[in-house]
Amino acid sequence: MPSIVTFLGKGGTGRTTSAIATAKKLATAGKKVLLIGQDSSPAWGMALGMKPSCDPQEMETNLAVVQLNSTVLLEKNWSEVKQLEAQYLRSPILKQVYGQELGIIPGMDVALALNAIREYYQSNKYDAIIYDGSGGIDPLRMFGMPEILSWYFRRFRGIFTESDIVKTLSPFVGPVTSAVLNTTWTANDITSNTDNPATRMLENGTEALSQGNVVAYLVTTPNPTALATAKYLWGSAQQIGLQVGGVLVNQGQSTDDISANFAPLTVSSLPSLDDSNWQALIAGLPAMSGKVDLPKPTEFVMAERKIKVFLPGFDKKEVKLTQYGPEITIEAGDQRRNITLPPGWRGSSVTGAKFQNGYLEVTVG
Amino acid sequence: MPSIVTFLGKGGTGRTTSAIATAKKLATAGKKVLLIGQDSSPAWGMALGMKPSCDPQEMETNLAVVQLNSTVLLEKNWSEVKQLEAQYLRSPILKQVYGQELGIIPGMDVALALNAIREYYQSNKYDAIIYDGSGGIDPLRMFGMPEILSWYFRRFRGIFTESDIVKTLSPFVGPVTSAVLNTTWTANDITSNTDNPATRMLENGTEALSQGNVVAYLVTTPNPTALATAKYLWGSAQQIGLQVGGVLVNQGQSTDDISANFAPLTVSSLPSLDDSNWQALIAGLPAMSGKVDLPKPTEFVMAERKIKVFLPGFDKKEVKLTQYGPEITIEAGDQRRNITLPPGWRGSSVTGAKFQNGYLEVTVG
Repeated sequence: MPSIVTFLGKGGTGRTTSAIATAKKLATAGKKVLLIGQDSSPAWGMALGMKPSCDPQEMETNLAVVQLNSTVLLEKNWSEVKQLEAQYLRSPILKQVYGQELGIIPGMDVALALNAIREYYQSNKYDAIIYDGSGGIDPLRMFGMPEILSWYFRRFRGIFTESDIVKTLSPFVGPVTSAVLNTTWTANDITSNTDNPATRMLENGTEALSQGNVVAYLVTTPNPTALATAKYLWGSAQQIGLQVGGVLVNQGQSTDDISANFAPLTVSSLPSLDDSNWQALIAGLPAMSGKVDLPKPTEFVMAERKIKVFLPGFDKKEVKLTQYGPEITIEAGDQRRNITLPPGWRGSSVTGAKFQNGYLEVTVG
Repeated sequence: MPSIVTFLGKGGTGRTTSAIATAKKLATAGKKVLLIGQDSSPAWGMALGMKPSCDPQEMETNLAVVQLNSTVLLEKNWSEVKQLEAQYLRSPILKQVYGQELGIIPGMDVALALNAIREYYQSNKYDAIIYDGSGGIDPLRMFGMPEILSWYFRRFRGIFTESDIVKTLSPFVGPVTSAVLNTTWTANDITSNTDNPATRMLENGTEALSQGNVVAYLVTTPNPTALATAKYLWGSAQQIGLQVGGVLVNQGQSTDDISANFAPLTVSSLPSLDDSNWQALIAGLPAMSGKVDLPKPTEFVMAERKIKVFLPGFDKKEVKLTQYGPEITIEAGDQRRNITLPPGWRGSSVTGAKFQNGYLEVTVG
C-alpha cells in the first residue's frame, strides 16, 4: 500500500512548500507520487507554479497533482447515494434532489477529502500520497475520523438494538452511509454484532494509521507561537494514533533548545525557497522513506497490567482520564480517545495513573 | 443586538493579532466586548498574554475572552440532548451514553462554535463579539451554515413528506436537532410547511448576516499568495452573504495596486506589534463601528427583472449558474448558493447572465 505523508503546523510556517518539496523529492527518487491539496483558493496553484484541477494531472515525471473541490466531490458522491438508494428502496425519494444544488455544510470538506484520499490510496496508481491539508486541527479530525466514527457505530449499535426506531431507520441509513464509505450495507448489518463492511472499512482506516502507513511531519518556524502550535499538534496527533515522523523548521535555523523540546524527533532546518530553486529545499529534507521507528501512540504492557500512552506536548493538567465499563477515555488537546481494555482485563478498574516525560501510564488492577 | 466582527485570511498573516487589537480598541471605546478564540492550542493564550479558559473571563476593563473547546461544548450539548430526549421519548435510549466519552468528528467544531456564538449573541451581555476563527474556508462554512442548512431542511422536508420513513424518524430527529439549535420541535414541525422554531432560528441566523450584523475584515500581507487568498475569501464571503468591511495589511505597507485590487474596500496598513505595544496597532485600525455601506451580496432589481450578485475576487470562468425550478444556483469559490426567485418571477427562466466588474447579472425572462 502507498505511504501517506502529511504536514501539521501553524498557518504561514511553510506547510505547502514542505509538501511540494517532499512530493518532488519522492518523485525524483522514482516513486509514483500524488500531491493532494485541500486549499481550494488560487494560492495553492501559485505555490505549485501551475493551475491544478480537481482531477489528477501530471506536473512533472512521476508527480501528479490534484486540488480537492468539495462541491465537485459532493456532486459525485450524491449521484452514488442516489444509485444505492434506488437499489435499496422501493420508492426512492432522493432522486428529485440534484447534486448540483447541494451546498457545503461543516464537516463535509473533511469527510469528502478523507473519502477521496481513500480512493486514491486503493487505486494502486501511487506509491506515495502527499496530503497538503488545511491548518489547525482539521487534518487531525480527518485522520481521527475512522476510529472515532467506528466507536460511535459500535456504541450506538448496541443502544439502537434496544430501540424500535432502528428497524425503520436502517434501510435509509444503510445506503446513505454506504455511498460515503463505498461499501454495501444491508439492513441487518446495523444491528448485528458481527463484522460488516462499513465497520471493516473504518477499522482498515484505523489500522492504516496504527501500522504507520500515515506519517505526519510538524512544520514550524523558530517563532515561539509556531513552536507551541507544533508541539500541541504533536501531542494531538498521538491522541488519534497518527505517527509523527519529524520536525521541519522553516524561515530560520533550529536550535539545541528546539531539538531538546521535540526529542526523540529529528529536527531538520530547511533553507528558504529562492527563485523557485527547489533543489536546495529538497536537499534539506530528511529521508522520509520507510516507516518511522518511534514510540507507538498506545502500548499495552500485559505483564505489568499497564497501558502506556505517548502524549508529548501536553502538560499534566491538560490530560484527563476516565473509565466507563470496559473502556478508558483519555482527553487531551481538545480530543477524546476511547481505548477498550484487552479481553483479559475486562471487569478491572484503573487503579493508578501517572503522567511523566510525555507518557501517560495507566495501571489496571 | 451586538455586532459580530471576524477576520479572514491566509494563516500567518496576523488574523489573531488583528482580532485582539480590534477587541482592545472597542473595549477602550466603552463597548462591552467578548473575544472568542477557535484555536484550542496554547498559541492563542501566548498571543493574548494570558491563559484563557473555556468560560469567558475578564482580560481588561470591558473585555472578556473565551477559548472554545469542542470537547467541553459537546459534553454540555449532549446533556441537553438527553434531557430533551427524555421529554419526547417514552423509552429514552441515549441516557446510557455519557458526554464525557464522545469524540469529536469533523464538522462538530464549527457547529458547536456557531451555537456558542449564538448563545453569547443572545445573552445581552455584550455590545460586540470578536470571533477569531481558524484559517481557510472554515469560518465561511460556519457563517454560511444557517442559510445552507435551512435550504436542506426546506428541500428535504418536501421530499420526506412523501415518504413513510418520516413518521418514525421525526420523534427522534426532533429532539436531537433541537438541542443543537436550542429550540423545541414537535413531531409535526418536520413535515408542516408553516414556520417552525428551528427554521426561524436558521432564518434569524441568515438575517443577522444579511442585515450586516456580522462583518468580516480581510487580513493579508503584501505577499502575492496572501493577497490571492484574501481576494478569494472576499468573493467566497459574498457567496454566503457575509459582508466584508475592509482590508488590513500586516507585515508591510499597502500599495496603490493593492488598493485598486480591493476597491471599493478601504485598505489599512497596520504597524507590527513591537514589545506588546498594542496602542500603535490599535491606532492603525479603521473605525469598525456601525454598519458597512458597501454593495449588498445579492440585490433584486425588480423593474429590470435582474438579480445582481456581487462576487468580487472571481474570474468569469470560476462562476457557474444553473436553474432548478424556482431557484437558481450559483457556484463559485467551492461553495454553492441557492437563490429562490421572488414570487412574481416563479415559472420564469433565466434568459441571460453576464459577469463583469465583479458582478454577476442574471436576467429572468
